[in-house]
This record gives sequence, C-alpha cells and structure tokens, in this order.
Amino acid sequence: MMEPLLLREIIKSFLIEDLGSGDITSASIFSPEQAGQAVFVAKETMVTAGMESVAAQVFKLINPQIACQAIPDGQTITAGQTVLEVTGPILDLLKAERVALNLVQRLCGIATLTAEFVQQVKDLPIKIVDTRKTTPGLRILEKYAVRVGGGHNHRFSLSDGILIKDNHIAAAGSIKEAVNKVKNVAPHTIRIEVEAEKIEQVEECLTCNVDAILLDNMSCSALRQAVNMAKGKVLLEASGGINLDNVRMIAETGVDIISVGALTHSAPACDISMRMS
Amino acid sequence: MMEPLLLREIIKSFLIEDLGSGDITSASIFSPEQAGQAVFVAKETMVTAGMESVAAQVFKLINPQIACQAIPDGQTITAGQTVLEVTGPILDLLKAERVALNLVQRLCGIATLTAEFVQQVKDLPIKIVDTRKTTPGLRILEKYAVRVGGGHNHRFSLSDGILIKDNHIAAAGSIKEAVNKVKNVAPHTIRIEVEAEKIEQVEECLTCNVDAILLDNMSCSALRQAVNMAKGKVLLEASGGINLDNVRMIAETGVDIISVGALTHSAPACDISMRMS
Amino acid sequence: MMEPLLLREIIKSFLIEDLGSGDITSASIFSPEQAGQAVFVAKETMVTAGMESVAAQVFKLINPQIACQAIPDGQTITAGQTVLEVTGPILDLLKAERVALNLVQRLCGIATLTAEFVQQVKDLPIKIVDTRKTTPGLRILEKYAVRVGGGHNHRFSLSDGILIKDNHIAAAGSIKEAVNKVKNVAPHTIRIEVEAEKIEQVEECLTCNVDAILLDNMSCSALRQAVNMAKGKVLLEASGGINLDNVRMIAETGVDIISVGALTHSAPACDISMRMS
Amino acid sequence: MMEPLLLREIIKSFLIEDLGSGDITSASIFSPEQAGQAVFVAKETMVTAGMESVAAQVFKLINPQIACQAIPDGQTITAGQTVLEVTGPILDLLKAERVALNLVQRLCGIATLTAEFVQQVKDLPIKIVDTRKTTPGLRILEKYAVRVGGGHNHRFSLSDGILIKDNHIAAAGSIKEAVNKVKNVAPHTIRIEVEAEKIEQVEECLTCNVDAILLDNMSCSALRQAVNMAKGKVLLEASGGINLDNVRMIAETGVDIISVGALTHSAPACDISMRMS
Amino acid sequence: MMEPLLLREIIKSFLIEDLGSGDITSASIFSPEQAGQAVFVAKETMVTAGMESVAAQVFKLINPQIACQAIPDGQTITAGQTVLEVTGPILDLLKAERVALNLVQRLCGIATLTAEFVQQVKDLPIKIVDTRKTTPGLRILEKYAVRVGGGHNHRFSLSDGILIKDNHIAAAGSIKEAVNKVKNVAPHTIRIEVEAEKIEQVEECLTCNVDAILLDNMSCSALRQAVNMAKGKVLLEASGGINLDNVRMIAETGVDIISVGALTHSAPACDISMRMS
Amino acid sequence: MMEPLLLREIIKSFLIEDLGSGDITSASIFSPEQAGQAVFVAKETMVTAGMESVAAQVFKLINPQIACQAIPDGQTITAGQTVLEVTGPILDLLKAERVALNLVQRLCGIATLTAEFVQQVKDLPIKIVDTRKTTPGLRILEKYAVRVGGGHNHRFSLSDGILIKDNHIAAAGSIKEAVNKVKNVAPHTIRIEVEAEKIEQVEECLTCNVDAILLDNMSCSALRQAVNMAKGKVLLEASGGINLDNVRMIAETGVDIISVGALTHSAPACDISMRMS
Repeated sequence: MMEPLLLREIIKSFLIEDLGSGDITSASIFSPEQAGQAVFVAKETMVTAGMESVAAQVFKLINPQIACQAIPDGQTITAGQTVLEVTGPILDLLKAERVALNLVQRLCGIATLTAEFVQQVKDLPIKIVDTRKTTPGLRILEKYAVRVGGGHNHRFSLSDGILIKDNHIAAAGSIKEAVNKVKNVAPHTIRIEVEAEKIEQVEECLTCNVDAILLDNMSCSALRQAVNMAKGKVLLEASGGINLDNVRMIAETGVDIISVGALTHSAPACDISMRMS
Repeated sequence: MMEPLLLREIIKSFLIEDLGSGDITSASIFSPEQAGQAVFVAKETMVTAGMESVAAQVFKLINPQIACQAIPDGQTITAGQTVLEVTGPILDLLKAERVALNLVQRLCGIATLTAEFVQQVKDLPIKIVDTRKTTPGLRILEKYAVRVGGGHNHRFSLSDGILIKDNHIAAAGSIKEAVNKVKNVAPHTIRIEVEAEKIEQVEECLTCNVDAILLDNMSCSALRQAVNMAKGKVLLEASGGINLDNVRMIAETGVDIISVGALTHSAPACDISMRMS
Repeated sequence: MMEPLLLREIIKSFLIEDLGSGDITSASIFSPEQAGQAVFVAKETMVTAGMESVAAQVFKLINPQIACQAIPDGQTITAGQTVLEVTGPILDLLKAERVALNLVQRLCGIATLTAEFVQQVKDLPIKIVDTRKTTPGLRILEKYAVRVGGGHNHRFSLSDGILIKDNHIAAAGSIKEAVNKVKNVAPHTIRIEVEAEKIEQVEECLTCNVDAILLDNMSCSALRQAVNMAKGKVLLEASGGINLDNVRMIAETGVDIISVGALTHSAPACDISMRMS
Repeated sequence: MMEPLLLREIIKSFLIEDLGSGDITSASIFSPEQAGQAVFVAKETMVTAGMESVAAQVFKLINPQIACQAIPDGQTITAGQTVLEVTGPILDLLKAERVALNLVQRLCGIATLTAEFVQQVKDLPIKIVDTRKTTPGLRILEKYAVRVGGGHNHRFSLSDGILIKDNHIAAAGSIKEAVNKVKNVAPHTIRIEVEAEKIEQVEECLTCNVDAILLDNMSCSALRQAVNMAKGKVLLEASGGINLDNVRMIAETGVDIISVGALTHSAPACDISMRMS
Repeated sequence: MMEPLLLREIIKSFLIEDLGSGDITSASIFSPEQAGQAVFVAKETMVTAGMESVAAQVFKLINPQIACQAIPDGQTITAGQTVLEVTGPILDLLKAERVALNLVQRLCGIATLTAEFVQQVKDLPIKIVDTRKTTPGLRILEKYAVRVGGGHNHRFSLSDGILIKDNHIAAAGSIKEAVNKVKNVAPHTIRIEVEAEKIEQVEECLTCNVDAILLDNMSCSALRQAVNMAKGKVLLEASGGINLDNVRMIAETGVDIISVGALTHSAPACDISMRMS
Repeated sequence: MMEPLLLREIIKSFLIEDLGSGDITSASIFSPEQAGQAVFVAKETMVTAGMESVAAQVFKLINPQIACQAIPDGQTITAGQTVLEVTGPILDLLKAERVALNLVQRLCGIATLTAEFVQQVKDLPIKIVDTRKTTPGLRILEKYAVRVGGGHNHRFSLSDGILIKDNHIAAAGSIKEAVNKVKNVAPHTIRIEVEAEKIEQVEECLTCNVDAILLDNMSCSALRQAVNMAKGKVLLEASGGINLDNVRMIAETGVDIISVGALTHSAPACDISMRMS
C-alpha cells in the first residue's frame, strides 16, 4: 500500500503538468454532462500494477464522480484483457487518460520485469531488491511496483538505511572507524550495511558488528567465499551488473539478497491503451 | 534551453525525495569542510544531455559553492569519457550524486535513442518528434533531451496544441463539425491537427482547413496516398508503431513528421557512474 | 470552461490572502450553525461571467455544504438583478464574500467590455482577441471572461505561441533568419506569428511561410495594403491603440483579428454587492 | 516597504504563469550570452510605483545578474521619461518584460489615482484609505501602491481589524451586544470599527467604547451631524460612492478618513512600454 | 474557532512529516478493511483543547470515513476520562495517532496553564494574554488554546499590531517621533502600543495619543504609579517575568492586561494516550 | 548536521507565519540602510544548540547580507554569555528576532534536558534516545537538539524503523506472525523492534529473530530479567515513565537504550534574549 495522502499530492502535480492551462480540444467539443465509458486494455502480456491505487486515483482527482473498476495488482494478464473500466464525463476521462497511462505503463513494466527476476530464483531462499536508481519524483510508486512484482525494497532515501561505501571508508580510515562513526549518529532503528569490493573487506566487516554487507561486482567464486565466511552472521547482498541471464547463477552462490538497479531504471514500459466504448 | 526558474523547483523536489530526513551515512563521516573532486564517467557510447543544465544544477542546489565542468550537450562520446567534473565538499557531492545520475542517465538515454532515429532519416526533409508519453514530472526535461538528440517536440501539454481524435470526431458528428467547434474556442496561435485512421478522413480534413493531419497506424501505401493528396497543403505526421527498423521506410513515404512515443517511454537509461578522485 | 483542478488551487491562495489568521469579527458573533442566505445583486448593466465557475467555487471551498444557484455566463443583465444565491452558515458566507466579489466584479467587467468591442464588429468576419496584458495570477480567469464576452484568446503563455518581434528580428538579422531559427526549435503544433511595423515587413513575411502577421500600430491605409497583399495567405492581426471608437474602422480594413490589451488591463470592475436576506 | 520574502514567492508564481514551459521564441533566437539593455518608458503622466521594489525584482528573479536602475517611488513623471533601465542577457530581459510591465502599469495606475484623491484634500487633516477591494493575489502590492500615492491602508485581511457590519449587528441583537462579543475574542492590538448607516447608530456606537465608526453611504449633512457628535471621541470614516468629484465635499464635513474602493478596483493601468536600446 | 482552510494545510504537512514514505509496520499487518475503535484517554487532570477542531481533523485528513466523537473544548477533566473516540480502519487510526496526540497534548497543556493563570485573577477586571513566543508553525493553534483556557490573544504577527520598543524609540529619537512615524504608515485599524521601562516613558506616552502601554518588567509599585497616571486613558499591559506566584500581585496593581510568554513557551504537555478498544 | 535544503523551506514558512503582511512597526521607523548589531544573550545556564545552524539561518533568510558569529553547538554556558552576534540592517535584525529566539530557546531547552539525562548515565554503556513525541513541524530540528545534548535518535518517521506494538501483535495473532508479515514487506535496511509488556513476550521475541525489543513500562526487576535473557542477542530498549530521578536506576539494569519522550515534549524552553548594541 502506498500512502494515499502522499500519492494525491504527487498525482495532482502530474495532472497540472499535462493539463497546461486546460484541455482545449476536448473542452471545445464535449459538454461537462456528456457521459461515457472507457477501458484500459493490455496490448501485451504483463503483470498488473497500480490500476486501482494509481490509475483510478488519477481519474478521481480529475472528477471524484468517475466510477472505476480495476483489476487487482499482481495479476499476470495477456494481450486484449481489460485492466480498468472508467465511467463518467467524457471530458474528464480524456483529461486523465494520458497521465494515468503514462504511470501504469511504467509501473506494470517494473512489476513485470521484477516478476521475471523473481521467477528465476523462486525456489531459492533469496530476495530480489530494488535500488535508489528510480525515476526522480516517482520513488514511492516505482518501489511499490517492485513489491507487486514479488521483489522487495532497498532503502527509500538516504535517511532510512546506512550504506557505507568506499569513499566513506577511505575518509574514515578503515571500515571499523567508519562503522563506529556511524553508530555514534545513526538511529538504532536502521541497519548498517557496508559495501565490500574484495573478500578481505568482508572479513573486516565481520569484526565490526555490521548488519549487512553489499558485495559489489564480485565474481561468483568470490561471492561463494563470502557466503562461506559470513552467511547467517550478516545479511549478504550481491549487487552490480545483475541481469536475467546471470541472476540464477548469482543466487545459487547462497547470498541472501540480490539488488538490481535495472528493475526501475531499465524496465521497458508495458503497452496499454485506452478505448472509449 | 530549459527555463532555469522551472527547473530549480523540480530538482529541489527530487532532492527532497532522495534525502529523506538527511544523508546519515555521509553526515556521520565527513565534516562539511572536507573537500573533494568527483567525475561522472560514461560506461558506454552515448549522446550527452543535461550535464550542464541538469546535473550541474543538482550539485549547485545542494551547495552553490560546488564548481562544475560539464561536457556540452549533444556530443557523441564513448565508454570511459568524463562528462562532468565536480569539486566541493565531499558531503555535498555524495548528497547530489544519485539524483544527478538518475536524471542524466535517463536524459542521455533519450538523446541517444532520438539520435539513432534521426540518423536513419538524416538525408530526408523530415522531423522526428516526441509525444506526451513522457515520465510524469519530467516532461520539460525529457522533451529537452529529444531536442538535444536532434528530434523535435510535439505539444507540451493539452493546452498548447489542438489534436482532434476519433472520440472528438464521433462526439461532434464529423471532422468538419469538430474543427469548427474547436476554432470557436482555440487561440489562433496554436495549430489544429486531426487524427485520421483512413484515407477518406484525410480527404475530409483537406476540406476543413486544418493545419496538420496525424496519420495513425497507416500502412506505407496508405501514407503514400495521403502524401499524394495532401503534401504541401497540410503537415503530415505519421504515428503509431514506429521503431528503428521501420522509421526509414515510413520516412520515405514523404510525410513531414514522424512521432515516436518510444523516444521517451522506452529509451533505455545510459550507464554513467560517479567516481571520487 | 476553466480547469477546476487549477482553479481550486488559485482560489485557495486568494482566500488565504484575505483570511489572514481568520475572520475575527464574524467568528466572535456567529456560531458555525447559524444559517442564512445571501444574494449577489448587480448594481449596473453588465454581462455576467464566473458566477457558477468562480464565485460559487469560492463559497464551496470555504464550505462544501454551501448551496449555490448562479446565473449562467454571458447573460446581459441590468441593475437590481440577482446573479447568485448562496445558502449556508452565515459565518462561511461572510468569509467568502469579499474574494468572490473581487473576482466576479473584475470578470464581469472584462466580459462586458469585450462584449462592447464584439458588438461593434458583429457583422464582420473578424475576431476580437485579448493579449498577455492580464493581471498576474489571474490569467486563466481573465481569458475565460474574454471568451464569455464573445472574444477569443491570444496565447496563454510564452510557450503556446510564437511571436517574433522587432528585437528578435534585429538579433537574427532578418525575418527569414528569425523564422528559420524558430522553426528549428518550436513544436509544429503552434503557429508562427511575426510582428510587422511596416508594409515591407509584411512582404518579407509572405516569403517566409509564417502563419500570422501582427500588424503593429499601423494606419488604416497601411492595414488595407497588408490585407490586399496577404489576406487568405496568412492570418492578419491588427494591434496597438485599439479602442471602442476606432475598432470598427480598423475591422473594416479586412484584417482577421484585432487584439486589444484594454480588454484585460483596463476593463472597469462591475458593481456587484452581496446582501444577506 | 513590502516584505521581500513574501514578494519573492508571489513574483515567482507570476513568472511561472507567464512562462508556461518556457519562452520558445526568444530561446530559439538568442543565446544566453547575448547581452543588451532595455528601458521602461512612461507613455503618459503618472506617479511611479514599484520600479525598484517590484519590476527590478522580477528581472532579478529571472536572472540575479541583471543590473537595474530604477526611478524612486512616488515621483510624478511625464510621457517619455525613462523609469527603469535593465542590463543583462536579452533572453532574460524578454522573459521578465511582460510580468514586470503588467505589475507596474497596475501599481502606477493605483498610485496615480490615489495621488489625485489625495491632491483634492491635501490641505485638510484627513486620510484617504483603501479597502479590501483589491485584486486577489496582489493585496500587498496594491496596498503598497496606495501608500506610494499618499494614501493610507485599511486592514490587510479579515484578521487585522474588526469591522462590525449590519449583518453582525442583526445577529448579535444590537451594536452593544456585537461589540461585547468581539471584545471577548479580539486581540487588544486591533481596533474595533462599527459600520453605521444612520445617525442613531452613531449615537449607539458612542455608548459602546468603539475605536472607529464607518459612516456608510451617508449624505454630507448626515456626515456633518456625525462629526458634531463624535469627532475626537472616535475615528470617523466615510465610505461608499466616493469619487474624484465628491471627495472634497465629503472631506469638508470633517470626517477623519475617507475610504475609496476605486483606488484599487478601478484605477486605470498606466501606459508603460519596454524598449530595447 | 480556527479557520479550517488554514488548519487543513498545516495538519497535512505534519502528517507528511510523520509518515515519511508510509507506515510500514501497520501496512504490513493490517488490511485497509480491518476496522476498529480507539479512544484518547486523559492520564491527568487537564483543560481540554482541540479534540474536535484539531485531533478529529487529523484523523479525517487521513481518512474522511473515520467517525469521531470528541469532548468539547474548555472542559476540566480528570485522569481516566475519555476525550475522543475514533472509529474506522485500524491502519488509518494508527497513522493519525502520533500527530493527533502530539498536537492535543500541547494544546491541552497550554489551555490548562492558561486556565491556572486566569483562575488566579478571575475576580479582577483583567485579561491574561499570550505573546508571539509560540512554537514556530503552530501559532494559530497555540493562540486558540490560550483562548480556550480563558486567556486572550496579543497580536498574531508583526502586521496586526504596532508595538514600539526601545530600539524603535532610540532610532526615532523619542517616543513622540516614533509614534508619529508609525501613524504615517500603519492602518488605522490596528492599535499603537509602546513599551515603557520607566515611569517617565509612561508620561511621555500619554502625551502622544497611543492606545496602549506595555509596562516592561516594572515593579509593582511602578505599575501602581502607571495605573494612577494612565488608567482609563490607555490600555495598560504588564509584561516580563510573570508566573503563577506573582500574577495575582501584579493584577492587583490595576493594570488592564498581563501578558505571559510562558503560556505558550513553557506549558508542560498534558499526558494523553490512545487505546485501541 | 541537519540538511540545509530542508531547513531552509521550514524556516521560510516560520518567517512567513510571523511576518504576516510585514513588520509595520519597524518598517515605519527604520530605513533599510540603517545598520546595527545585536547579540543573543543567555539568561540562564544551558547547553547551546542551533545558534549557527538555525538562528543564523533565520537571519540570513531575511537578508543574506547579515553577518553572524555563533557559538558552537553543545557548549555549556552560563547566564550572561553571548551566544550569537548579528550585524546588518536593524530592520532585518528585528524581523528575524522572534522566530530565531523561539527556535533556539526550544532547541537549547531540549539539548540541556538531554544533557542532564546523559550526565546521569555517563559512565554506563547506554544510549539515551528520543521518540516521535516531537513538536509537529519541528522533528528534524528537535532530534538534532537531542544529538547535540549527547542523546541519540529513535526513528524519524513511520517509515524508517519497524515498531511492532500490542495492536499489531493482536491483529496478527502472535509476535511470530507479526514479525513474519513485516519481514515480507519491510526493506532489509531497517531494523525490527517489538514492544513487550511482559517477560513472556521477551522470550517469544527471542525466537523470532528480531533486532530490538522495546520493554514498555517494566519494573526494574523485570528489566533485569529481560537483560539476563536477551542482552547481546537483541538491543534492549527501556521505555515509559522515565525521568531524571529514575533514569540511573533503569540504566543500571543493563538495558542498551533508554527512550525518553520528555526530551522533546517536556523540555522547558531556555531563556535567551536579543539585545541591540
């Protein structure tokens, strides 16, 4: 669930962007009373995301009287299926159309790609997670779509997770020093994760009482070494260059988590279109 | 050029999204005085877009003291090239990093894909244009990237262009009727374009004094018919299902404009990363 | 029709301006339950504009329970006629009163003045249009009032119309050069209009494939020359120093459009007052 | 002085309204480096208002590098005089032009009209004041212009002054009752003014320890009666139907204050234009 | 009464602060359909403030379907009493809980402390008033709580009251000069109060036709002197170092008003907790 | 460090609240050129917080030209010491005064109270932490003051920490079930804390792999039992009814963390005043 209060403000700003000073074409032709019905139809196979929580809300923000019937999230559907039905003044349906489509095409794309990654590893005790490589302005929506697709979320912002990277380590002098400095400041409610590029750093992390290690761009054999060393003591996250071809192989190394930037920065938009009926 | 006043507000909201209540990791480790330098490096071949106008502005919004040296827009560069150099407090460089990267990776992706389309038709008197299928919240940025890639822009919002579609025509009774209704309302400063799905509709358009016809999902032979009928009298825009494989063929029909939704909704993000130096 | 989503935000800011930290006088005297009825009464002859779309919305933003009965837009009414009836808590009626009146007095003023201009030329095939000389913050409202009065709108902002003026021409070197530069950038959905101060510039425009020419401050004989040269090829807009005394004479030159800044910058507010009943 | 912090936010919203998605015409023709100079020139006699505090700020918000030389407020100038000189990138000068002009034309109009009213009564111990009949969104600017013209301000919002009107009196039962209820709630820092339509109400006010009486639409003889009764005990404000023809006559009745809605709702905009040099 | 339009915007921003990107704990466990009931229970004796006007609005902003039954403002209640009952989706009740409690604990604290001050002087013709020493962002709420507790309000902002302090007097040269300068600018709707630290300044004030004198940090004997001199001619406000122990003594000097910064800056929060039932 | 980008927006809204439509008193008396100097002076012993990061920023937002010299955070100072020196236009110093004081008085109060708690337990390996019982709108500032006082922060919002309470447990059926549901949704970057009211619940928590247990309102002997059972396996946080008298006793039970709502909801404001010099 995304928080409706936050979503409403975001969607309002998107509508204002698309409306400019108003939809002149439709306003010239339709009276506010002329009612109609439209459906969103999938043009390809996809995992649904956001029909009720996002698309229907776009229509309702334009006009709370519009009635919406949406397919639940997380359904795998095929070309030709109806995913949303909206009834109300045609003028208002047309004003909401583009923003609603632009959003759900992207969200379904993310859910669909996430589901493909999840499918590759579904019999393994592992989580596919996203990153902060989301579209600016759309983070809570895109991270929601990842969850719909069966994935999990990495931190939402720089403040709800600690991730100590190479620059931090270099500046602090050592992993131990960096971890100590962070522990002095960070709330105890968030975990401390350290990025390791070499197996020696994994060893160093284990002496510092961290919660998780991000194994950055390691080979499968290095990942296996890390798993042998640290599994069960800290969470192990593999990251860097993960794709549908290598995700299974990496998962089989025994890491707990695989993070995939592509889930949000490279998911192709799904093809959905609106038809008046 | 994007308008800096508008851009500033947009980028500020993106930074707030990514900062949450603050970058705890970096704030625990770096003092505000610790200065450093970082570079954005291309990891693949791409057309640059937004290094100065967007990425540098993200850094400057975090801290106006950060010095930026950016590669101009529209350059074709290859893997390994530096596209931006930033100097200032490390704390601030790290705070701006992700938002700046998320934006320029997307913008370079759009510029690069646009340039590929433009390249296919570069010897023909034709324009490649975008659509309103942009990422909500990023329209002025994405449409800028299209221009950087050599493309042109379709309307920015529902208010700066008239596009009469099938629903409008049906509601009005005929193309003529729809055009008349619109002319009664629309400012004379914007053009009137009508969507035609069949060649008969092109004919009808020609009797109505419209400015442009959007030839929707027509075959090449239908497009050629339309060109024979209407070229020079109205602008002819081909649209629907255009990709890198068929854009040349469609361009050779003689239409004036080809609009491609994929420029913005399906451009893969380019791979760029930040390295501290 | 103005877009309600945009209007709501604008009206809210106006109410906040007028409320300060709250209406102390009324809050001291009326309980929230005390209901009443009020009417807006015209104190002079006028063309109505915005009673339903603006004034009623002001009341409803203060309290959605207020019932409103408004006279339609575009009616010519005389002193003493009721134009709006509102029923609800007196406290809320008084809070909305001033903002609602300030807005409709101005909008009726604009509609009324526009109707007078339109009346002068009503048998001629010509449009009376407004300019960007609107009150900052009220553009979509004032341009709506112009339409209500029978006028038409020029561009809403710097982005939904091209207007090449003397400075642009000087900087580009020639009209042709300026037009070419603009065509390289501007969306094909907006028209290109060029300001001409002399008849030679009209000639030059005709060689450049522009859509409209703004004939700035030309004498009637110069306007007639322009019409002879260009009518039917491009839209001809007369502008500069137009008033109720000379508009007919200018219209008779045969131009297509007359733009009048006074419609918005100098329309006297109409006298309307609220009476509790 | 208007508060710059408030002014900046207001002006920013006005610029956004006028820019739309950007000034396409100028951006196509001018490079950001092309510098120029422009002047605002008065086209008629007027009292200056807002050249430095408003117009210059519009230019500086677009680009802080623009240098401005403005004529002080409150000067009476004649046609042809330069009131503002701005130097900077031409692109930026043109972007700010319309908003700056729309504002100062209105403000000079108000200052000029106010000065005419003030001139009529300049030898009398009386204040000309404005009302809340200002343009929504422009209150602090328009009330500033009134001060520049030699006038004074009535309350800025419903919270910084008590004004008990007929509806309040009717609801409370009597003037005394209304005043008592208000005194129980209102801060002691704001004055209590009661609207009186008849001379008996003036009498009643005098028994209630109010600070001011608004004498609404009274004849000169009634005003004189009120002055005889109450002058020196409470402030006496005449209001309703005041114009340049009757203001002197009303002032001579001996009231302390004359409030004139026309100062803000009906001041004709002054004619000022920008010339590039 | 606080103005709902203003309150809504304020409360929305508070909820966004507390929600971050959403209530993960509750969203993981409760479905949106699971309904429940909760009560706010007082854990100590207090004067109620804001249950209906603030707490209930927090819940309704999260979900307008939540039903609320609130105790009226200004009731003295004891530990164990229910002050608010809310019914609706548990998920939404938990999201609103903390913000609602944080607000009413503070408001009840202020109302309770104010009532204690008022109680001390209840048989005297004197007003206990607050200051501008409120929590930034909460002024209209905290000043409302003062009224609920039987106190009165000093000015809400720098613009709805004139207060001439020592720095102003020093800069102007004398009290007379300062008062004159202010009278030239200030609306006649707000009173002029001058801060006096010595009895000579009280004398000077009386010659200047001011409305009120703030007697700053004066001894009781000095206050009595001021009362002898000025009572009935101007409002006399005692200020500085007032507490529950000395307020009675100060009140008995005969001043009209006692202002107490502690009402808002030092009222201890009342203990209220929410229980699901 | 608080994030300046966030702070700026917050402080701006506080200034707007306090300015109303402007500081009439000062604007009437001081010219913008009249420069002066002022100091913030402590009137009692306190731990400093926010002089540079908050108070100085208030002044700079009013006028970036104001020069500020601030005492560092975390200093223990005594009555009479100067904590901030500001130089600039007197008009601007006075406009910023109240907001700056209101903020730092509160922040110093929180830092001072926190330091007292920390002092009580300074030789023990324990952290004093705050809660979400902060003033709405001031969370990042108040949590900063806690850190300045030597305390640590609990979660900033509902999204950056998991806290499973009795209602969650009841709804889920058991602690185990609740934890499992949360693990399916929550990012791995945030810890899972469970509230336990009885020692049996501590036991149950230990079987569920949680990160921390909030021991709510337990007696010291129960706390010691919990420490014996769980210390070193999970973080143990004592909470509920902690004050300066019992904090030592509770700390000696061996828990890792003590959370104290009073740090933010009941810290008395410190007395600081501004003197012009």
